[in-house]
Order: sequence, then structure tokens, then C-alpha cells
Amino acid sequence: MQEKAITIKELYDELKQGKDLLKSNPVYIAGWVRTNRASKAVGFLEINDGSAFKCVQVVYDEKLPNFEEASHFLTGACLGIRGEIVLTPEMKQPFEIHAKEILLLGNVSEDYPLQKKRMSLEYLREIAPMRPRTNTFNALYRVRSKLAMAIHSFFQENGFVYVHTPEITTNDAEGAGSVFSVITDAKDPVNDFYGKPVSLTVSGQLHVEPFALAFGKVYTFGPTFRAEKSNTPRHASEFWMIEPEMAFADLEDDMEVMEGCIKYCIRYILENCPDEMKFFDTFIAKGTIEKLEAVLAKPFRKMTYTEGIECLQSAVKAGHKFENPNLTWGVDLQSEHERYLTEEVVKGPVFLTDYPKQIKAFYMKENPDGKTVAACDCLVPGEGEIIGGSQREDNYDVLKAKMDKIGNTQGLEWYLNLRKFGGCVHSGFGIGFDRLLMYITGVANIRDTEPYPRTSSAIKY
Amino acid sequence: MQEKAITIKELYDELKQGKDLLKSNPVYIAGWVRTNRASKAVGFLEINDGSAFKCVQVVYDEKLPNFEEASHFLTGACLGIRGEIVLTPEMKQPFEIHAKEILLLGNVSEDYPLQKKRMSLEYLREIAPMRPRTNTFNALYRVRSKLAMAIHSFFQENGFVYVHTPEITTNDAEGAGSVFSVITDAKDPVNDFYGKPVSLTVSGQLHVEPFALAFGKVYTFGPTFRAEKSNTPRHASEFWMIEPEMAFADLEDDMEVMEGCIKYCIRYILENCPDEMKFFDTFIAKGTIEKLEAVLAKPFRKMTYTEGIECLQSAVKAGHKFENPNLTWGVDLQSEHERYLTEEVVKGPVFLTDYPKQIKAFYMKENPDGKTVAACDCLVPGEGEIIGGSQREDNYDVLKAKMDKIGNTQGLEWYLNLRKFGGCVHSGFGIGFDRLLMYITGVANIRDTEPYPRTSSAIKY
Repeated sequence: MQEKAITIKELYDELKQGKDLLKSNPVYIAGWVRTNRASKAVGFLEINDGSAFKCVQVVYDEKLPNFEEASHFLTGACLGIRGEIVLTPEMKQPFEIHAKEILLLGNVSEDYPLQKKRMSLEYLREIAPMRPRTNTFNALYRVRSKLAMAIHSFFQENGFVYVHTPEITTNDAEGAGSVFSVITDAKDPVNDFYGKPVSLTVSGQLHVEPFALAFGKVYTFGPTFRAEKSNTPRHASEFWMIEPEMAFADLEDDMEVMEGCIKYCIRYILENCPDEMKFFDTFIAKGTIEKLEAVLAKPFRKMTYTEGIECLQSAVKAGHKFENPNLTWGVDLQSEHERYLTEEVVKGPVFLTDYPKQIKAFYMKENPDGKTVAACDCLVPGEGEIIGGSQREDNYDVLKAKMDKIGNTQGLEWYLNLRKFGGCVHSGFGIGFDRLLMYITGVANIRDTEPYPRTSSAIKY
Repeated sequence: MQEKAITIKELYDELKQGKDLLKSNPVYIAGWVRTNRASKAVGFLEINDGSAFKCVQVVYDEKLPNFEEASHFLTGACLGIRGEIVLTPEMKQPFEIHAKEILLLGNVSEDYPLQKKRMSLEYLREIAPMRPRTNTFNALYRVRSKLAMAIHSFFQENGFVYVHTPEITTNDAEGAGSVFSVITDAKDPVNDFYGKPVSLTVSGQLHVEPFALAFGKVYTFGPTFRAEKSNTPRHASEFWMIEPEMAFADLEDDMEVMEGCIKYCIRYILENCPDEMKFFDTFIAKGTIEKLEAVLAKPFRKMTYTEGIECLQSAVKAGHKFENPNLTWGVDLQSEHERYLTEEVVKGPVFLTDYPKQIKAFYMKENPDGKTVAACDCLVPGEGEIIGGSQREDNYDVLKAKMDKIGNTQGLEWYLNLRKFGGCVHSGFGIGFDRLLMYITGVANIRDTEPYPRTSSAIKY
């Protein structure tokens, strides 16, 4: 067994609980050097052990047998430190550790790629395995982990069953995207491992619907793929999606769950990651915490697509310039339009509902007007669309006619048949997990939210 | 909004909390017919709404306006039922619902593939989207969901950071397996989307190690892939893996976490899925609950590979017949050997440790004896190997020599360099999630534990 170190998190937790920290003395901690400043007689180490966003200050002096060696420990070196906690209520940090012994557990060579000075996000993107040692990425991946837990907690507490839909599939759910093929033999990709062409999933929705019709409420949470060469800050070719699906739920019920989920996640992160959120609010996107608290404060607005188009047309008349000024009823909204609605018109989150059926997917429930479908996008300031959802077409004949028309009935009979095997009103939605993380932290590029981002022509690891 | 139905789970929860169920009257429930028995004057429906493994009995009689219609509702039909809860303490079920109104929300057509009678697991495998409506799969996927939550709870409660390692990668971690290639253009798979050949991950371990050296304790939990044409009940080409990794932890520390994790999961499932576990214990694998309780009762045993080989050699001398009787020191153990050790020798879970280095992966820590590595497999009765783990080689020169020898240094410099960028003693392990589910439920075939199993030449959805 290795000597058990007390973690920085444990020390801060004890402090918060009002315990006497000095009772833990003597302490042993293990972690990595963030900074090391030494004069002739005394030195100060900032040590991070990964258990918390915060560091602990370690003070050492000439009495240390290896004082000379210690004064030259470099950023990134791994140390084991034995010493005494000293309370420092008058300082920025509530306590520090006075070292009695400092062991070099792992040195850093001269080509260590992280420097003490501030490094650009672009530079750090090139060294993905090293990024988590910096403040920004330490905070970001810690929030990512907590946000994933928030998702699971929300759905499990609300009685949803978690379903692992497949990554390799014969279906292309959206009928839309460019997909990645999966092969073992490039010479014969058709008669391959599975005996037929298969691809990486673009959505688990079609696969999860049968489970909603057995368990009532279900959700997926797993990787999805799009082989689109979109070189934007919001597109990655591999990303995690959350796709809940509910029996006995229409679009109104659906939106209630979406709003509940977003608010739960925000509350969870504000509560569980206060240091990280303060960091983002200070160094990455000022006003982030205020923005999130405003989201919690009131119900999300709702607006139909038709009302949205009218707003945008009025804006054009009033002189607002859009890059895409074509705003006749029936067009697909661009990001600039969505952001205008949520940022300028509503000034907060808004559900845009009842889109023209020709711009939405085949499985969405046709409204009685014959022109629109019971679909919604949830738009938020600073990000635009963050969730897309819809009530599903539950009428066998209507759905079959639509699927026949676009020619995707074959191979999807099992999906269509759900409508004649005890079907019911049901709805669901999809959240891009990485985009939700961008929204909550204020981090602007999806390449930074993913531990090892996959975008076209950029894969190193 | 759809009328909010009260769920069967809510009714049972209220009962458990000692609340007066009759205060909920009148009730509205929505669910699916499991059975329907009707005489001339009275009928009995078993309704499952997916919120619980249990069903509720609905009694209806001639006073129902559509009594005649109701008496012909088929298995699988989706119903909305308004009525009164009646307590039936003398019966098997503590309450039933006397229907005042029964609405047919979704009918079933004649080609509905599920029958009232017992269907074979093999038959059900052919209709994956329908399986969750049966008792076995309703129980199984409910436990699967809870087991996933148990995993996240265990690691998050213990301060581990969840890391999404990539699915598409340039590395083949084990150097072992057949991998799936990912392409968009079969004509030119090399100069493709990512500008180089990429494949689906076989393990997140190499990618997660850098995160352990920043956060101290981390875990992955996501899909992994092996393009092996192994047609066995234990092999799938797509499966979920959990891969924790810990800084400042040696093999002993590693085994402590493995044992803690397995016991936590078992306790979580016994507590949260009592009805489902009783079902498995009765209908799938008798003795399952007793088996699990025995695992909780005492510490896991430990035995070196060398001691294991000696046990097996003694067994052979005493007349035990193995299919593979070659048990000279250095051979890789087969499933029959592992199961003999855990089932006949130890009669419980056992960690087999310190394997010959030539049969284990390059990244495992070489022991001082120069012949073995600090690796372990956790073996359990009825299943064999359920976890594999090791301390990682943290000596740069030793690791580089091993990687050079097998020729995989190129492209993995970032992994090797962790040993000169503030490295430390660290360890980790891998649990096959689907196999853990098999072990806990007693379900014998991996094709049943996965919602849409992917095995060679068997992919329909």
C-alpha cells in the first residue's frame, strides 16, 4: 500500500464543517507543483493534488534537509510532503502547510510543455494530455464530470430508466447527416463483420423509443457522431448526447421536463462547483454566474415559430441587419436569428415551438393545422439552440406515408410498428452535452470542452 | 398537457411509507396490458406502466360502459384507466384498482409478436425492440440502469472525476485486438476525414492516465469495441467499460478500490431492485441473491498466479481433468482454470496477482523479481474474470524499452512522456459493465444484457 495522503478537498471539507484542522497534524499530502518561489532561507510551493480546484500553499525553510534541492523543484514535479497544518486566518488562504519533509516522487524533464505563464487555449489544444493540469481545464473537466452526474441524478430521481442505445447501427436516424462507416475490411465493406453496411450512430432516439413504450420514461446518454466537415467552434464529429423519451407526454409535458432538467443542472453546478464557476466568471466569461442565476429565477418563455418569424420581420423593418435577411414563413432559422430572439427579444431562455413540417424530421407529430409539427427548440442567450425536442408522430398511417415518401421505411419497420403495438402519445428531446457544458461555463469552443476533441482533420491521440 | 397518471411505483412507495392509499382516490393510471381475463360479468387486467417491475390488477365489471370492448383488450394494448384503489390485504397484491372508465390509448394489431405464454430468450433476441415489455427484460434493463447509477455514485462519492475518453482514436491500446476502422470514403480510407487511419477504441486507459496525473482519481465509463469473431455467450463487439485510474496507488490500493466497487454495486442493486432480484433468483438463476450476499460477507481472497498454478497442478495430480491440462508456469490461464480456482479452491471471489510479464500488457509495472508484473484479475464463481487491473510501469526507461521492443512507441510518445512529466506510482483497472450485469443478475448471455447487442453477423437495428 502507498502511504495514504490527506487530500486538499478533505482539508477544506473539514474546515467547512467547523472541525479543528490542527487535529489532523502531522499531515502527508501528495500532488503537483504549480509554482515554487524560494529565497535563500524560505520557499513557497503552490501544490495541487487534483482533489479540488484549490491549491494549498506549502512553506519550507532551511531546516529542510533538502532545502537546496526543494528550492529548484519545477512546475509539474510530483511531490510527497510531510508537515504541519498552520491556520492563517489573516491570509487569503485559511491554512498552509509547513513542510518537515519533501520527497520528489516524479521529476519533470526540460521539455515539459507547460509553463508558469499564461498559455493560449489554442496552444493547449495541441497538448490535450497536459491540459488538465492547467487552471482552466482543471476547472472545466471537473465541471464536466459533475454535470454528467447532474444529468444522471436528475433523470434517475425522476424515475427515468437509463438505456445504452447502440453506437454501431444499420440506421441513420435523422436521414440527414453524413455518417462514419464502420468496417474491418476496406476491400469488402459490404460483406464485412456484420454482413451488411453499418455506421456510427447520429442519434439514439429511434432505438430508445421502444424502451419508452415499456418503461414509460427513459433516457440515453452516450457518444454520437457526425461526419460533417463544419469547422466552427460549436461542431465536433464526436460528442455526447442526452436523449430522454417519455410515454404519455405531449410537447407541453416535454418542455416541462426540458426546463426542469436545465435548471436542475445549473443549480447542481452552482452548488457543487463554486470555485470552478467563480474562476470561469472571472477569467473566461464575465457575468456567467449572473446569467445562470437569471435563468433559474423565472419560467422559460414560449413563442411559436410563426410569432418568431413575425418578430424577426419586424426587426428587419426596424432596420436590424441580418446576414440572412430572407425571413419568409417556412425558412429554417439561422443561428443569428435564434440568438436575436433569445438575446434581444426575450432576453432569456425561450422555447420556439410549432415549426413548419418541411424543415423538421419525419418522426415529429403533425399539428391539426396540417402545416406545422409539435416540435420545439430551446434557445438560450450566448449559445442559441441548446435543446431540440418534439412530440412523436403516433399515427401509423400518417407516419408510414411520410416514411414511404422519403424512402426510409425499409429497415425501420420495427420503428413504424411501435404505432400499432400499443402505441401512445409520446415525446422526447436531445441535449448536446458538450454544448450544455459550453453554456454553463461560458467556454466558447467545443474543442476545449472535450478531453480529446474530434473535429475534422484534427486527431492526434 | 396530458392528464398526469399516478404511477404504480408511486402507489407502492406511498404504501411503504405507511400513507393512506385511499386518499389518492379517484386515480388515473396509464400502462400496457400484460394479461386480460374476463367472464360474462367481470374482468381482470394486469397492467404494467414501466415505473416498477410490479404490475397492478385492475378489476372491471358490467357497469363499465365499454365492458364488452374491454373484455377483448389484448396483451400489449395501451390503456388509460380511471378508478378507485381498493385495499386487498388478504390477497397476494396489497391493492387493486376498480375501474370506472377504461380508454384504449393504443391498440395492438394481430401481428403483435409477444404472446402471453413464455417465450425463449433466443426468440426474444430476434425482436430486441419488443423485449423490454417482458418480465425478464423489464427486470434486466431496470437493473442495468440502476447498476450504471451505482457505478457513477460509487466513484463520484469517492472523489473520482468522470472523463469521456474518445471513441474514435489513432491508438490501439492493447496492441492486441482486432479493431474496427472508421471511414467516410472506402476508396481512400487513409486520406479520409481525419487525414489518417482511425479506429474505434478498445480501451480508454491510455487516454485516461494523463487525467489521473492531474485529478488524482478518475474513471471512464463508455462504449468500447472489439472486432473479434468470438461466438460465445460472453463476447460482444460493442460493450461498455468502466476504467478507473488512480495516482499514488499501487496494486494493493487498486484491489481495495476494486473490492469496494463490486461490493457497493451489489449492495446498491440488492437495496434498489429487490423485486427484480427476486425474479432473477426465482426464474433465471436460483441462488443468485445468496451468492451475492456471500460476496458481501467477507474480504476477497488473494493468491499469486504462482500459487494458482500450484493449486491447479495439484488438482491435476489428484485426478481433475481440464480440457487444457498444460499448466506449466508461464501459461495464460483459461476460463476453466480460473473458474476452478474461484469455484472449487476459494469458493468465492479471489484476486489472482503477479502474472508472468510475457502474458500481460506492456504498460504493467514490472516486479522486482524481473519475471512478473504487478497485475491482478478478479475472479468470481459462475463468471470467472470480472475485473483486470494493474499498477502501471512508471519508470520511463523500463517502459520505453518495452514499447520499443513491440514497436508501439511511435504515436504514443505522449503516453510514455507522462513518466518524465511529474509521474508517480499509479494504478487502474477495467470492469466490463455487461459482464458485471451478467454476474449480478445471473443472466447467462451477454446478448441479453445489452438493449441492442452487437455480435458478429448479427445486427438488425
